[in-house]
Amino acid sequence: MSLDPARLGPMANAIRALSMDAVQAANSGHPGMPMGMADVATVLYSKFLKFDPAAPKWADRDRFVLSAGHGSMLIYSLLNLTGYARPTIEDIRDFRQITSPCAGHPENFLLDGVECTTGPLGQGLAMAVGMALAERHLNATFGDDLVDHRTWVIAGDGCLMEGINHEAIGLAGHLKLGRMIVLWDDNRITIDGDTSLSTSEDIPARYRASGWHTEECDGHNFADIERAIAAAVADGRPSLIACRTVIGKGAPNKQGSHSVHGSPLGADEIVATRAAIGWTSPAFEIPENIAADWRSLGAKGAEARAAWENRLASNEEGKEFVRRMSGELPSGEAAAEAFKAWLGQSQKVATRKASELALEILTPAIPEMIGGSADLTGSNNTKAKATGPLTADDYSGRYVYYGIREFGMAAAMNGMALHGGIIPYGGTFLVFSDYCRNAIRLSALQHARVIYVLTHDSIGLGEDGPTHQPIEHVMSMRLIPNLEVFRPADVIETAECWQLALENADKPSVLALTRQNLPQLRTEGGLQSAKGGYLLRGAEAARKVVLVATGSEVELAVKVREALEAEGIGADVVSMPSMSRFLAQDAGYKATLLPGDVLKVSIEAGVTLGWERIVGSDGITIGIDTFGASAPAEVLFPHFGFSVEAIVPQIKAKLGS
Amino acid sequence: MSLDPARLGPMANAIRALSMDAVQAANSGHPGMPMGMADVATVLYSKFLKFDPAAPKWADRDRFVLSAGHGSMLIYSLLNLTGYARPTIEDIRDFRQITSPCAGHPENFLLDGVECTTGPLGQGLAMAVGMALAERHLNATFGDDLVDHRTWVIAGDGCLMEGINHEAIGLAGHLKLGRMIVLWDDNRITIDGDTSLSTSEDIPARYRASGWHTEECDGHNFADIERAIAAAVADGRPSLIACRTVIGKGAPNKQGSHSVHGSPLGADEIVATRAAIGWTSPAFEIPENIAADWRSLGAKGAEARAAWENRLASNEEGKEFVRRMSGELPSGEAAAEAFKAWLGQSQKVATRKASELALEILTPAIPEMIGGSADLTGSNNTKAKATGPLTADDYSGRYVYYGIREFGMAAAMNGMALHGGIIPYGGTFLVFSDYCRNAIRLSALQHARVIYVLTHDSIGLGEDGPTHQPIEHVMSMRLIPNLEVFRPADVIETAECWQLALENADKPSVLALTRQNLPQLRTEGGLQSAKGGYLLRGAEAARKVVLVATGSEVELAVKVREALEAEGIGADVVSMPSMSRFLAQDAGYKATLLPGDVLKVSIEAGVTLGWERIVGSDGITIGIDTFGASAPAEVLFPHFGFSVEAIVPQIKAKLGS
Repeated sequence: MSLDPARLGPMANAIRALSMDAVQAANSGHPGMPMGMADVATVLYSKFLKFDPAAPKWADRDRFVLSAGHGSMLIYSLLNLTGYARPTIEDIRDFRQITSPCAGHPENFLLDGVECTTGPLGQGLAMAVGMALAERHLNATFGDDLVDHRTWVIAGDGCLMEGINHEAIGLAGHLKLGRMIVLWDDNRITIDGDTSLSTSEDIPARYRASGWHTEECDGHNFADIERAIAAAVADGRPSLIACRTVIGKGAPNKQGSHSVHGSPLGADEIVATRAAIGWTSPAFEIPENIAADWRSLGAKGAEARAAWENRLASNEEGKEFVRRMSGELPSGEAAAEAFKAWLGQSQKVATRKASELALEILTPAIPEMIGGSADLTGSNNTKAKATGPLTADDYSGRYVYYGIREFGMAAAMNGMALHGGIIPYGGTFLVFSDYCRNAIRLSALQHARVIYVLTHDSIGLGEDGPTHQPIEHVMSMRLIPNLEVFRPADVIETAECWQLALENADKPSVLALTRQNLPQLRTEGGLQSAKGGYLLRGAEAARKVVLVATGSEVELAVKVREALEAEGIGADVVSMPSMSRFLAQDAGYKATLLPGDVLKVSIEAGVTLGWERIVGSDGITIGIDTFGASAPAEVLFPHFGFSVEAIVPQIKAKLGS
Repeated sequence: MSLDPARLGPMANAIRALSMDAVQAANSGHPGMPMGMADVATVLYSKFLKFDPAAPKWADRDRFVLSAGHGSMLIYSLLNLTGYARPTIEDIRDFRQITSPCAGHPENFLLDGVECTTGPLGQGLAMAVGMALAERHLNATFGDDLVDHRTWVIAGDGCLMEGINHEAIGLAGHLKLGRMIVLWDDNRITIDGDTSLSTSEDIPARYRASGWHTEECDGHNFADIERAIAAAVADGRPSLIACRTVIGKGAPNKQGSHSVHGSPLGADEIVATRAAIGWTSPAFEIPENIAADWRSLGAKGAEARAAWENRLASNEEGKEFVRRMSGELPSGEAAAEAFKAWLGQSQKVATRKASELALEILTPAIPEMIGGSADLTGSNNTKAKATGPLTADDYSGRYVYYGIREFGMAAAMNGMALHGGIIPYGGTFLVFSDYCRNAIRLSALQHARVIYVLTHDSIGLGEDGPTHQPIEHVMSMRLIPNLEVFRPADVIETAECWQLALENADKPSVLALTRQNLPQLRTEGGLQSAKGGYLLRGAEAARKVVLVATGSEVELAVKVREALEAEGIGADVVSMPSMSRFLAQDAGYKATLLPGDVLKVSIEAGVTLGWERIVGSDGITIGIDTFGASAPAEVLFPHFGFSVEAIVPQIKAKLGS
């Protein structure tokens, strides 16, 4: 049954009115996109989107991602009009104020119904790829009865011009994610002006080259929008619909121009717009008949949800499905027992290899873990026996060959984590965290449990040289709020850090791992890494020095300690796999490990700035503040001063001994 | 005249032999690509590439970029065989050793003939776009007599799969950079295995969608390679040539497999390869007839260069061309005079606006400055009157509308700077430096004079919220070696920082600039920012505190000082627009500004980790270690503790007063 345009028009104008009035009230924001895409969004919500405003977290809802996040008033309008508990109309009146969940860009942690935080261009669409992939995987695992939904995206020219778009659609096309549909706001305007200023691309042709189905429609013709979406739903490939729109549609003097993109319309143009679209209600008031039409839309979703709840209750996998979607880990006893066996051994392996050994134990025990790598599987050691390939032919697999797409991988992992039911982990070289840095930041901002396996974590990678050698990376990721950076020192700490990362339910974690082999330094368990830093070796002679080291440099610290003790200088070694976790311990614990009156020395094969917080103004920071070089690791470490011979004299000089 | 395949075959095998032997000797490296692309490279160098081994820096040479930098032995072989002074055969024997310029990946600072550092995938091709753009701009400025060369790229599947490739080819296609030709090593292998594991893309179709001309050829058929390259040269669009190759071509048992990508062939396979390709010379020895064929290739380039030198000598713009290519700035007197006039004023402007005011003075005086923005021209304030649009119709313009392509912009700027004759600057929001972070790193590694104009540099951007508010960014860029980060406090410091950035001939600079207005704090000149930090306001009462601040927080520090002085607590204010520059001053200067026995307080609207290096263990670091929020700036600053009322009590508590 086709939709009734006589009712859709006023419904769409309700979006326009709320959007222009909210932006005007805030004196800041982006009216152009919500007004331009109001007609498309109205058709989507009226006929196609599966949602229940009373249950925003319903597991089998369709996911709707506003990738063009600057048009946030579009989603705030939709959530309010369809009857979600928030935002209220007061929330919308307070758009962009600190008291309102209606932030400048949509934030998943402020409002249910906002599936992910958007604004950084291109990433919403790329996260949607992860959501669509999660849907197919869970469908393959739990069946149509429990998992059967679509992923919808509204994207603008910016989202499509960003490099990440190439990675995202390449992955989606390759994996044949046919239940993903992108509604492109094809308004031919960017901030600088017409798109012709900066691009000449045939976007649909590019999407087709990546295995996508494409449609075009008049974004202001309800029937044509409906036809195009129906065609996309019917096609087995992921779909791009070019919705030809006029930015700021409805504003008679400003529509179609970049001036309407990111500024309030102004009082006069708002008056003119009201007249042009026949909107007579005061600001923030919706006529009851229009409001009723909007509120009626959730009924179909409420029915569908009720039926789904019944199926869930009778499904023998229902409890496991609910557990996975809740994010609660399964009992870890088997894994803990397996790790205990390592304590009695003496495994000299790279921590990337230790991570693989840990994954061999963890992935059978935690079926929601889905691994992958940006084309460095054998180097990142991310693949375990339990994780077979996830492909277009078999979505039940648990390992994604992401290709050479670091940013796309990271964003897809965000989408998988936010979809729920999956704990994604993925690998690349630590230095190429630069390529996906903003997605890592969005993991942190969105409280997404994503685990980044970042190997080859220092000059220890050797011959590949300075482009591949992280210098600033470990410290620079420690600066990102709500991200925990682990740099384990041996096989035991690696297992501990994996456990802690998995338990970080509300944040992402980085595991910085070595290429080169490291000796096993611990034979006791006790999850010592849980305090971030701990005493690994105590001084024998009178303690004059505390050596604080991370990762591969803990081995060196132990050797430095031995050399100092041989000269009668007592030295502790503190291993610090997580600086942020250590700094969050109580003052007493920290003071015990790092007493004020003892020389403190940090040793880490990375930049030194930041280590003063641990070793104090009078400490010594051993590190590397230049780019690296190409040579074998065993040449590079002493070349850059990482040797007992280079470090001990500095300590003795400082001690005056 | 077509090339003689009977001579080309052995020439190509010389590349294969050197590559496999060097990788074997290093026991590390990538033989697959050089062996696979040896035939293509031999045709390119034999017939098409304009180069003179005796003058590697000749301004009108063709630029050759090995974007697939892991195949570094290809370019080392080519440079050695054609007779460049370096690498010598001893350099090649020492491939990947610390004593050799033959690093794991090609480094522009180690070898002439290496136009740019490659390895981070996708960026070589994207830098080549900048080189090709630089060529067209200089051609439009100085004419065909002085500037008339091509830009060639060898790229692999990795370079094409990375997101930056989409941005780079979009820009090149839009700007119709027809003198750029990409030779794609279409070997259908990535590290993880066949490309079919991770991609299903029709790459040539995508390039055509971006306005490129595409060709295909058999990458092991000399005549077909020659035909395809000739067709590319003849076409007015940028060209992609899909060279169908076998990775590791020549190794009878390993070719065509991903096992030959990144590991030595092994002694047995090397013996088998020698037999298969009929190579009887010992390792690192080239038969004289083959060596002579290679060395003869430079003769044509030497002739062309001699003719060019004559044209240069008689060209009335010759001196100016030489000056620009040398990187020497023009006399700055006029600009200095103009800036002096500011001292008597009291301009309250955002530092992004101050930057625009500075650009209005600098760009007419320095014609090699080429500006641009990633679609934020009006927000970054990067466009000056003297910089008209650079378009496909008018390459003489000086402003590039880069589109929503931060990473592509940054890489293109690297290419422009490395081409020479241009000082590129470009803008985006500071938070989106994340999108181009690795290109910024490559600016630093390559000693490229690129100036990043990064605006909206803190929570001061206000309503757009946490996705758009930099928190960790200023400090995290301070961690990148050889990058200078400036955060000026007012209009005067902004002008000074622009001058210092332009004078940073061997490194990139970041200008972190505000959205919000800031008062003019200085009325004296003296280029005080040249010391990185300096005394802006001296204590009146007995000095008990030194307040160190940057950028927008200097205004707050001045107010805090006033409040302290009003209570009889003497306080200095040190403005620190460049922390790295300050830390490089002599100990005496630093101790004068930051005496040991006085409480030091840092104030910066960003993460605090790192500030201990300035304020010491006993200092106070005022900053923000969480994500921001969406609200007007004047609400956010006090909300996050940036107010006199919040700061003064902390200082008094610490002083015990």
